[in-house]
Amino acid sequence: MALQFEIIHKSSRSRARVGRIITSHGVIDTPGFVAVGTNGTIKALDTAAVSGTGLQLLFCNTYHLMLQPGSKVVAEAGGLHRFMGRNLPIITDSGGFQVFSLAYGGVTSELKSAGAKKQDGSVLKITEEGVLFRSYRDGNRFWLTPESSIAAQKDLGADIIIPFDELPPYHIDSVALRKSLDRTHRWEKRSLDEHLKNPNEQSIYAVVHGGVSEELRALSCQLLSDLPFDGYAIGGSVGKTREEMRGMLAFTLPRLPEEKPNHLLGIGDLTSLKMTLPLGVDTFDSSYPTRAARHGTAFTREGPLNLIRTAVATSWEPIDAACSCHTCRHHSRGYISHLFQAKEMAALFLTTLHNITYMVDLMASYRDQILRDEI
Amino acid sequence: MALQFEIIHKSSRSRARVGRIITSHGVIDTPGFVAVGTNGTIKALDTAAVSGTGLQLLFCNTYHLMLQPGSKVVAEAGGLHRFMGRNLPIITDSGGFQVFSLAYGGVTSELKSAGAKKQDGSVLKITEEGVLFRSYRDGNRFWLTPESSIAAQKDLGADIIIPFDELPPYHIDSVALRKSLDRTHRWEKRSLDEHLKNPNEQSIYAVVHGGVSEELRALSCQLLSDLPFDGYAIGGSVGKTREEMRGMLAFTLPRLPEEKPNHLLGIGDLTSLKMTLPLGVDTFDSSYPTRAARHGTAFTREGPLNLIRTAVATSWEPIDAACSCHTCRHHSRGYISHLFQAKEMAALFLTTLHNITYMVDLMASYRDQILRDEI
Repeated sequence: MALQFEIIHKSSRSRARVGRIITSHGVIDTPGFVAVGTNGTIKALDTAAVSGTGLQLLFCNTYHLMLQPGSKVVAEAGGLHRFMGRNLPIITDSGGFQVFSLAYGGVTSELKSAGAKKQDGSVLKITEEGVLFRSYRDGNRFWLTPESSIAAQKDLGADIIIPFDELPPYHIDSVALRKSLDRTHRWEKRSLDEHLKNPNEQSIYAVVHGGVSEELRALSCQLLSDLPFDGYAIGGSVGKTREEMRGMLAFTLPRLPEEKPNHLLGIGDLTSLKMTLPLGVDTFDSSYPTRAARHGTAFTREGPLNLIRTAVATSWEPIDAACSCHTCRHHSRGYISHLFQAKEMAALFLTTLHNITYMVDLMASYRDQILRDEI
Repeated sequence: MALQFEIIHKSSRSRARVGRIITSHGVIDTPGFVAVGTNGTIKALDTAAVSGTGLQLLFCNTYHLMLQPGSKVVAEAGGLHRFMGRNLPIITDSGGFQVFSLAYGGVTSELKSAGAKKQDGSVLKITEEGVLFRSYRDGNRFWLTPESSIAAQKDLGADIIIPFDELPPYHIDSVALRKSLDRTHRWEKRSLDEHLKNPNEQSIYAVVHGGVSEELRALSCQLLSDLPFDGYAIGGSVGKTREEMRGMLAFTLPRLPEEKPNHLLGIGDLTSLKMTLPLGVDTFDSSYPTRAARHGTAFTREGPLNLIRTAVATSWEPIDAACSCHTCRHHSRGYISHLFQAKEMAALFLTTLHNITYMVDLMASYRDQILRDEI
C-alpha cells in the first residue's frame, strides 16, 4: 500500500501545515527533517544511534548504493531496511541528481564559478533513453535510465522513491532548459509507469523542475499533478539567493496538489528552512546538520557552537543544556572539543548525534508553532 | 582506599588463577582483558558504547592526555572518569613508555630494523631527574619525571596508576641495561613516595623490568616486591619470540607477590594471550583487538574474519553467530563489509564494538576453564 497523508492542521497565518505521512515502516510527522544517509548509514553513526534520535525519515542515495554494494546485493539482503537494520521509513532518490551534480560539481560550486566550470567528463552521453556515465569509484561505464533507476529503487525497497530526472545546470539558456524539462517529464512518466507495474509498498514522488522560470515551473506542476504520483518533490535550481528561493517556492507550492505531501530537495541551512516553512513545505532533506557536525559545528538553541574553538575546551556544560540527546546527557563541550583536537572519531559520532536530535526537536517545536498558528 | 584483590580459585593444573580486583569504580574480574583508550576514548567508540560491551578496565595514556587536553584541564573537569563520562575502572600509565617507544619507534619496528634504527630525536635528554622530550603534537619541550608523572596521574585520577620508568631499547648491552634498570628502580621508588603523599582512592602498580636477562628480572622482582606497591606490571622487552616471552614470564611471575594482582603490559595477539594464561597473568592490555577492527579484521570463534574480502560482501550472517554484541544482534557481515568498502566510520564503530565484546566473552570463558581446572 502506498503512503497515506493526513493534514492535521493548517495555519491561519500562512500556508504552513502540520500533517502525518503514514508508511508501512512508520509515521513521518510533517513538517519533518530528513537526514542524509548516502551509503545506507548516516556518516559517523550506526543505525541504532540514528533510530535513537527520533529521526523518522532517512534519505539514501541510489547512485552510491548502485555502485557499492550494488542494488542486487541489497535486494539479496532483503532490501535496504534489512540490509542496514533500519525499521523506520527510508526515501531514495533516482540517481539522476548524483550523476549530474557530480559531473557539474554541484549547484554551489557551479554558481561560484559563474558557469565557467564545465562538467568533469563523468557524464558521457545524454539521450532520450537516459544517461551514460562513468562511475566515480572504478571508472566503469553505466547507463542510468528511468527503467533502470526504478529497477534499482525496487531492489532497494525504500518507502518513498523518486523518478529519474535530469538536473540541468543553473547556467542554461531557455531553449536548452525547456528541452531538458520536456525530456525530464517524459522520463518521470516512464519512471511512474515502471513503478506502477509493481508498486509493492512503495510510494513515488514526482520531481517538479523548471529552474528559475515561473512559466516552466507552472508547466511542470501542472503536467506532473495530472499524473498519479503519491507526492511532489521540488528539484532543480530554485534560485541563487534565499529571496529567489522564497519567491520560487511561494510560486510553486500552491500549484501542487494540496492533499499530497511535498518535499523540498536539498535545503542548505537553518535560515532557509525557517523561511520556507510558512510556504507549506512538508519535508526537506539536508546534509548540512551532519556535515556541520563533522566539521565541529554543533547546533544549539543559542546558535551554532564551534567545538574546535579554544574557549570551548574548558567548558563542562553540555552542548545545549535544553537538549536531551545522548551526547548532551553524557558529555561536556570540553570533552567533545578534546575529542576533535585528538582527532578521535567519537567527536564526529557525538556531534552528529546531537545535531540530528537538534533538528528533530526543532521540527517538533515548529510543528507546535504551526498548531498554535504562530507560523 | 586502594584496590582489594581476592583470589577465587587457583587452577590445579597450572599457575592460572581466577580473581577479582575491587576498586572504587567497580570490579575487574581476572584474568581480564584491558582495552586501550589512549585519548580518553576507545578509537571509533563513545564511552557508552564501551561500557555496553562489559569491558571492566580501560587503559588511558598519560603521555597523550598530558599533551592534549593537559592533565590540569582533566583535573578541572573532575578527573578522567567525569571528563569522559566513564563510571568504571581506569588505569593510566606513567607516560614513560610512550616517550621512549615513540622515540625508538616501538619494540616491533626496532626488532625489524635489528637495532639499526636510532631514536627519532624526540627524547632530548635522560638524566637522574627524568627525561626531557619534544611533544609529537607541537614540538614543545617537556620534562617528565617521577614526580611530574605522578602529579599528572593524580590529576587524571585513574583507579590504578603506574610509576615512571624507562623503556630501554631491546638492543642494549648489559652494562647499559643494568644502568637503566637501577635508574628505573630509583624512579619507581620516587613515584611510589610521591603517590603515597596523597593516595586518594588510587592504587599503584610497580613495573618489573630487566629485559631478557633472568638475573635482572629476578633483581627487579625482589627489589620492587619489597616496596608497598598494590600490584605488579611486567614491562620492557620480554623477548622477541613467543617462546622467549613464555620463558621469561614463567621465570618472572612466580617471583612476584602472589597475593597481589599482576598485569602484563601490551600483549600483542590472541595466541600469546592463550600461552600466558597458564603462567598466572591477571590482566593484560592490548590495542590489537581495536586496531585489528579498524583494519577490517573481526574476531570470531572460528578465527579472524577479514570483512574487506569480497566473499564476505554477500554474507547475511552476523560476524559471529555465538556473539550477543550490539553488532552481531543488528548487522550482517555483508552490511559491515559494505560500510568498509564505502569508507563509512560506522564500519569501525561496529567492528570495534564486536572485537571488544569478543575479548570480554573470551576472558569470561577462560575464567570458566580455570575454575574447572582445564587451564
